[in-house]
Amino acid sequence: MKLLYPTSLRLNIASLEGFSASLHPYDVKSVIPEDLVDADVLVTWTNSADNLRDAAKRMRNLRWIQSLAAGPNDVLSAGFPSSVVVTTGSGLHDRTVAEHTLGLLLNAARRFDEMRDCQVQGRWANHLGGPQPDRPKDRFTTLRDANVLIWGYGNIAKTLAPHLTAWGATVRGVARSAGVREGTEVFGEDKLPELLPQTDALVMILPGSEATKDALNAERLRLLPRHAWVVNVGRGTSVDEDALADALEKGEIGGAALDVFVKEPLPAESRLYKAPNCIVSPHAAGGRPQDAEALIAYNLRRFIADQELKNVI
Amino acid sequence: MKLLYPTSLRLNIASLEGFSASLHPYDVKSVIPEDLVDADVLVTWTNSADNLRDAAKRMRNLRWIQSLAAGPNDVLSAGFPSSVVVTTGSGLHDRTVAEHTLGLLLNAARRFDEMRDCQVQGRWANHLGGPQPDRPKDRFTTLRDANVLIWGYGNIAKTLAPHLTAWGATVRGVARSAGVREGTEVFGEDKLPELLPQTDALVMILPGSEATKDALNAERLRLLPRHAWVVNVGRGTSVDEDALADALEKGEIGGAALDVFVKEPLPAESRLYKAPNCIVSPHAAGGRPQDAEALIAYNLRRFIADQELKNVI
Repeated sequence: MKLLYPTSLRLNIASLEGFSASLHPYDVKSVIPEDLVDADVLVTWTNSADNLRDAAKRMRNLRWIQSLAAGPNDVLSAGFPSSVVVTTGSGLHDRTVAEHTLGLLLNAARRFDEMRDCQVQGRWANHLGGPQPDRPKDRFTTLRDANVLIWGYGNIAKTLAPHLTAWGATVRGVARSAGVREGTEVFGEDKLPELLPQTDALVMILPGSEATKDALNAERLRLLPRHAWVVNVGRGTSVDEDALADALEKGEIGGAALDVFVKEPLPAESRLYKAPNCIVSPHAAGGRPQDAEALIAYNLRRFIADQELKNVI
Repeated sequence: MKLLYPTSLRLNIASLEGFSASLHPYDVKSVIPEDLVDADVLVTWTNSADNLRDAAKRMRNLRWIQSLAAGPNDVLSAGFPSSVVVTTGSGLHDRTVAEHTLGLLLNAARRFDEMRDCQVQGRWANHLGGPQPDRPKDRFTTLRDANVLIWGYGNIAKTLAPHLTAWGATVRGVARSAGVREGTEVFGEDKLPELLPQTDALVMILPGSEATKDALNAERLRLLPRHAWVVNVGRGTSVDEDALADALEKGEIGGAALDVFVKEPLPAESRLYKAPNCIVSPHAAGGRPQDAEALIAYNLRRFIADQELKNVI
């Protein structure tokens, strides 16, 4: 059995040895060399569209693709036959995305964006320093006693939540199925009309799909308190960007810290670049698979044993 | 017994009732009214210099001042007789300063400052988004596996450290007395030559004093790796600002995220406003005493019982 691994990230290949499979590096931006096209397994990360389209045509023995991306749309649209099993890198980005999300929340609370604007002008952001009101009702200034609602309660949310509660936040979740997950109460979307008005920071971690399109629309934005911040680290399509820009420009919400957008890079003409209290992060939360070797090894072992793989699409 | 409490912050006075003391509000920006000058106890927060100087002259019965500031230099320089016991608000700012410090560390790692500069110009910070190298050796990009050294290992450090280790950082401390504090190894300053070269992020939380002046000087800055960040949330005087600006301008360290400065507001002509990879925060970390009532009540009880007070200077 032959497994091709990408050279587009640093992998500890030694930790994958010992299986009855030969391991071969390949360049994800070129076509697969002739002597490797007979591989059974392809691990992908930031492959070019050409590489994948070509692989879909020429890799006749391919039976399994392990993508290291959480949402491998590139693989799915490359034309591989449906007999090829695709597994995602879901879980490899939980820590990095959660860390970035905390960074965005603290930027929202402490207004490092405003401080930066002052600094660049050589000005001291006097209104943000010195003695401050403690947890004013009309602003989101700290995680302490803040109500953080995480919409899309998967593994990233589970990774993030304890960090927020450790700072004194009350975390609740919204997901398709309600219940208590690792101590956090998760509600169905039907409870949004009750939850949104109590929210200081809404963290969106929804996947991109028809079902989540414009999930945060004008109507739901109106349910948020005027001081509430929206943080989006899921997919841009889950937020109606026009409605959000309207809400920001009219001061109807406290602000937005966004890492994902309907179109990326965010077009220069987007109102979100200049909307008040809007923080634009260039899809920077993840992009660094963590402990990919463990997932590859786990799935490789099960693949060889003809068992069900993890993260099958 | 008469206690005066400031109206410059919201205090839950009901929680202070029941002691054999009458409680009276006062305005910290005006002189103490005639009918209150006979008070025994003065609680201070953001008092004007005039208020304190006047109080020092006219409050002949004063025996104890409870400041809510961590370092009440204002009270100490107002001319109160040495018979007046002064207690600090040490501990009331641990959470807020620690939260801000984490925010500064995440700004350093995730470069929200650079993203902001791009955003303001209507540009997508392409180099910071998309697939990224995972924990490159030549940059500080995540708390995971980062060596964070906290110089000045008091209560703020103790509050901060578990949040950093929860993200995978290795935290060590430097203080006058070495030892293990709540699981963190704390070294004496004599170990700095060994510790600084292993540091990815140096967090300074030193108090202002002659002993800490220019603690981080050119020589010690040179011991840091080229990718290391300096975060200062203690006192500005503990860093040699000229040496720091030199190191930043020459690219000898990764960057600096500073909340405190030798002179505040930071003068417009300071090189730190424009130095590369420098984040200026306007002394915004604390300024919001947390749970001040509990400290006042604790000390009031002991004061009435003639026991030793907490946080005596």
